Amino acid sequence: MARVSQEHLDARRRQILDGAALCFARNGFHATSMQDVLREVDLSAGAVYRYFRGKDELIHAIVTEVLDDVRAGFETTGLQTPPPPPYELVGIVMGEVLRERPGLRVDGTSYFPRLVVQVWTETLRNDDLAALIRDGFERVRAIWVKIVQGYQDAGMMRADADPDAVARTMISAAQGFLTQQALFGEVPVETLQIGLRGLMSMGEVS
Amino acid sequence: MARVSQEHLDARRRQILDGAALCFARNGFHATSMQDVLREVDLSAGAVYRYFRGKDELIHAIVTEVLDDVRAGFETTGLQTPPPPPYELVGIVMGEVLRERPGLRVDGTSYFPRLVVQVWTETLRNDDLAALIRDGFERVRAIWVKIVQGYQDAGMMRADADPDAVARTMISAAQGFLTQQALFGEVPVETLQIGLRGLMSMGEVS
Repeated sequence: MARVSQEHLDARRRQILDGAALCFARNGFHATSMQDVLREVDLSAGAVYRYFRGKDELIHAIVTEVLDDVRAGFETTGLQTPPPPPYELVGIVMGEVLRERPGLRVDGTSYFPRLVVQVWTETLRNDDLAALIRDGFERVRAIWVKIVQGYQDAGMMRADADPDAVARTMISAAQGFLTQQALFGEVPVETLQIGLRGLMSMGEVS
Repeated sequence: MARVSQEHLDARRRQILDGAALCFARNGFHATSMQDVLREVDLSAGAVYRYFRGKDELIHAIVTEVLDDVRAGFETTGLQTPPPPPYELVGIVMGEVLRERPGLRVDGTSYFPRLVVQVWTETLRNDDLAALIRDGFERVRAIWVKIVQGYQDAGMMRADADPDAVARTMISAAQGFLTQQALFGEVPVETLQIGLRGLMSMGEVS
């Protein structure tokens, strides 16, 4: 057996994950077969099964990676003193998440938002995925709670605002924005940033 | 043929729509058959096909009704001078939409958020539904643009805020909140309202 570099193994794994994610984004998990994935990545069954034993492992790996990226993004940029304002944070993290997967771009359009919506639907009937998503959401929410407390400590937000409610609301805005991208095509992340600033200005002038 | 009152016809139509919506919310459009719908509403094929010729007509009717309700909700409560603040508007309209369908409640939990997520996914592969959703979104967005302009006219929001971006952001927050309800169970609408107030307070103190 030929020696294979770690770099090669990683690149192959990346290729499989991106191809599978693209299939899932297009047609959903249920309607995608391993045959579809093999065709998309143009590899033999043996080559793919060496990395993933089947669709469930692929789904698990893809969702884990996305949740880790989102969490790490908010952790790195949000847990500063003081934290950057919400519109900056959302811009940085969503910008990264949407940009960083060249394998999910088709004709210049990111399939990431579609993948996210497909994952939500699959979550409604897949208990393992539901547990994974719930855990990932709880981690992101916990970081957002800390960020909000950072705003309060820095006097950037009213001390009596509920950090958990603000955390859920910020995550809602990001989720809903991804939904609009999935359904209606790409809108620049700046739109969400400008919208959040506009909303925040209602406190300023009232 | 027995004479049937309009009231009876309406009630029967409602029963079919709610039963179909519940099936779709549970298992998605694709995996739901007309047989499933007939079993859910406990009516004969003849009774159901008198109202709807098939799954596509049911989907169309359900989605049209939801979009009309959301649009009418924001129109009625939002187009006042001055408009109620965003957290009040969202509370009123989402509260109504979540409450008003007793037929979509199972063991006290509303299946409406799940229905919405299932509709989004179906939209990714159904062009007719995509056109319907896009049209509904555009109408709701147009109303939100007017509401935001109302805030600006009343001096409640900075005059240089972009109404379209704020409109998209408010709709994002509502969509994302529904997503969290679908995936993680019911959270009171008040949480979103409190979160929006907290965010708005960042303008106040900065």
